[in-house]
Amino acid sequence: MAEQSHFHLRQTCPDSGARAGELRMVHGSVATPVFLPVGSHGAVKTLTPGEVWDIGMRMVLANAYHLYLRPGIETVAVMGGLHKFMDWGGALLTDSGGYQIFSLAPLRRVSDQGVTFRSHIDGSQHFLTPERVMQYQVALGADIIMVLDECPAYGDSPEKVREAMMRTHRWAERCQQAQERDDQALYAIVQGGVFPDLRRQSAEYLTALDFAGYAIGGLSIGEPKEKTLAIVEETAALLPEDKPRYLMGVGSPEDIVEGVARGIDLFDSTLPTRVARNGALFTGQGRRNIRNAAFSRMEQPVDHGCGCVTCRTFSSAYLHHLFKSEELLGLRLATIHNLYFMRSLMDRIRSAIVDSTFRAFRDDFWANYQPTDEATRLDQKQKWLKGREKDF
Amino acid sequence: MAEQSHFHLRQTCPDSGARAGELRMVHGSVATPVFLPVGSHGAVKTLTPGEVWDIGMRMVLANAYHLYLRPGIETVAVMGGLHKFMDWGGALLTDSGGYQIFSLAPLRRVSDQGVTFRSHIDGSQHFLTPERVMQYQVALGADIIMVLDECPAYGDSPEKVREAMMRTHRWAERCQQAQERDDQALYAIVQGGVFPDLRRQSAEYLTALDFAGYAIGGLSIGEPKEKTLAIVEETAALLPEDKPRYLMGVGSPEDIVEGVARGIDLFDSTLPTRVARNGALFTGQGRRNIRNAAFSRMEQPVDHGCGCVTCRTFSSAYLHHLFKSEELLGLRLATIHNLYFMRSLMDRIRSAIVDSTFRAFRDDFWANYQPTDEATRLDQKQKWLKGREKDF
Repeated sequence: MAEQSHFHLRQTCPDSGARAGELRMVHGSVATPVFLPVGSHGAVKTLTPGEVWDIGMRMVLANAYHLYLRPGIETVAVMGGLHKFMDWGGALLTDSGGYQIFSLAPLRRVSDQGVTFRSHIDGSQHFLTPERVMQYQVALGADIIMVLDECPAYGDSPEKVREAMMRTHRWAERCQQAQERDDQALYAIVQGGVFPDLRRQSAEYLTALDFAGYAIGGLSIGEPKEKTLAIVEETAALLPEDKPRYLMGVGSPEDIVEGVARGIDLFDSTLPTRVARNGALFTGQGRRNIRNAAFSRMEQPVDHGCGCVTCRTFSSAYLHHLFKSEELLGLRLATIHNLYFMRSLMDRIRSAIVDSTFRAFRDDFWANYQPTDEATRLDQKQKWLKGREKDF
Repeated sequence: MAEQSHFHLRQTCPDSGARAGELRMVHGSVATPVFLPVGSHGAVKTLTPGEVWDIGMRMVLANAYHLYLRPGIETVAVMGGLHKFMDWGGALLTDSGGYQIFSLAPLRRVSDQGVTFRSHIDGSQHFLTPERVMQYQVALGADIIMVLDECPAYGDSPEKVREAMMRTHRWAERCQQAQERDDQALYAIVQGGVFPDLRRQSAEYLTALDFAGYAIGGLSIGEPKEKTLAIVEETAALLPEDKPRYLMGVGSPEDIVEGVARGIDLFDSTLPTRVARNGALFTGQGRRNIRNAAFSRMEQPVDHGCGCVTCRTFSSAYLHHLFKSEELLGLRLATIHNLYFMRSLMDRIRSAIVDSTFRAFRDDFWANYQPTDEATRLDQKQKWLKGREKDF
């Protein structure tokens, strides 16, 4: 019952896969398509929950993996659950830790039973099973929780990717059986790498199990962008229309516009907040680096007409100065801007879908926007490789 | 005229040197004794000006030295002055750069004409004179500005300290002659190291010149605390009663209580914000380090009954977790707490003076407070030495 009422599809587009809907959760309803900022450790980096709320965000992602290692699941539970611990009144989604274990943790050993790994913090050894991951996510108390999955790397052989997919399926079933609370929506994760036949198998297998939502995992880890988008399009088309579709770890404004066009409802990524801390601010024309000397005496904000607190209050020159002087306030102000940009982008996307003008919106977006594809790819690839290096 | 109305002494204590007054400036009146948080680069580290205001702070210190090197005085002037540049509507005090040149900058050469030094940022060579420093502070537009002084190091010979003092006097006269705006109060800086006779000479010389206020410089740079307090007491007693007295670079809650008792009206220090970023939170009982495991599951705030946003919103456990996870939000929340503590401490000190209960307040403070003298001394000494090392 709870699962059936979790997602309401409101509108679909005649000329693309784009759709508008609503996620109903204990901690509020959230209109889709939606972008979730990432607060791995129970904090969106540099911001208070009040600031995240004021930006207009109503849903945040946290990582069970990070919280399991620090401060420990029991601590969060003793403190009244994750909402209370981080003082966040909106909706929460916790990732299971699958992606983190396979990208961050060194010395992994996977068996059907579960996965053994070492903490990337102190090297201590840990063993997680689908059942334990469910137990932890129940204790954290997020509104949406994820199955434990095995994430192969880009470049792994079809056999290896298939094996990981099959295990992900068996683990998904065990997670489903271990679900305890009907106020938490459990999402499955479709794997299968860049192989269309495996993605099809995975989508069909998991759809038959009837989850509250479906994520597409294992993308944006170094594969060419055309491949990402092709896999997203093919996989989304195989997922049930009445369930939310979540593209994990994506992404940039341009990738989100294209993901929406292919039928995705939820996105999450550290990209907007991470690049903000590097001084890259989103604008309708693409990213601008605030460290650039062109901003040193500019009174106007970087993103003309932006309504965020940063752009309404401070000149580009001041922001430029804060970054040059390595003042932490700069990281905050840039983060606020990029998240406001994402929230505003999602609002405009949703309005366009509801008004049946998404095609024109998308054309207009691309007419103005200069993507930084190569930089983004490289950034994501390096991030992934950095985690993998610790294997050896 | 402007100088005469800058400070109004309201009340003195019969049993100590403590006094309550008011500084009247274009950007607001500020009750004294007052503590100024430091925003060297035009930003109180980690905080927005709105947060500093909400904490109850109405006056902030910025450094002409830092702003001269980056973004450059002309940039701030072009952007409409420092108040506008940093979006701070309250009062501002700029330090002249004397202390910074003599503690941060390598390769100094001092002559009567001025001081040549290399930037601690990029090694570029600069030459500052009293006249130029005045011109820069006029352009920045702070409500209170400081003369250029020469700061000897603790341990320098009486001859060397005397020479620096004499030069400081000559420079003070030149600064006074170069003063352009009557909406800026110019303060002189009493030097003389730890030598009572030199301090007396300096106080008498500068008092005769009739400045709007008098600072005591060159203390808290490694000398024993008893010596600091003795010099403060002796020097304050030599300064005119109707002018504000400013103890530069002090300090900790305990040093401020003792400074007030010796007749000081203004204080500034990076200590409360710097130790906050190290996880040290002020309480009525002394400092507590939030990284301590004792806080890992504590629901109560570190400082019971504190009314700051941090203590009203988050548990000690969450703050502990943020510091352990190296989340920048932790630095912000700790900074907010320590500045709120300082603001509240100054409020209580002022009330006690006005109510003629300062003696009881001071007794009560010391009955509860465990100072961290050694740690503080060491911290200040190391900070000073770190700057001096660059000499060679």
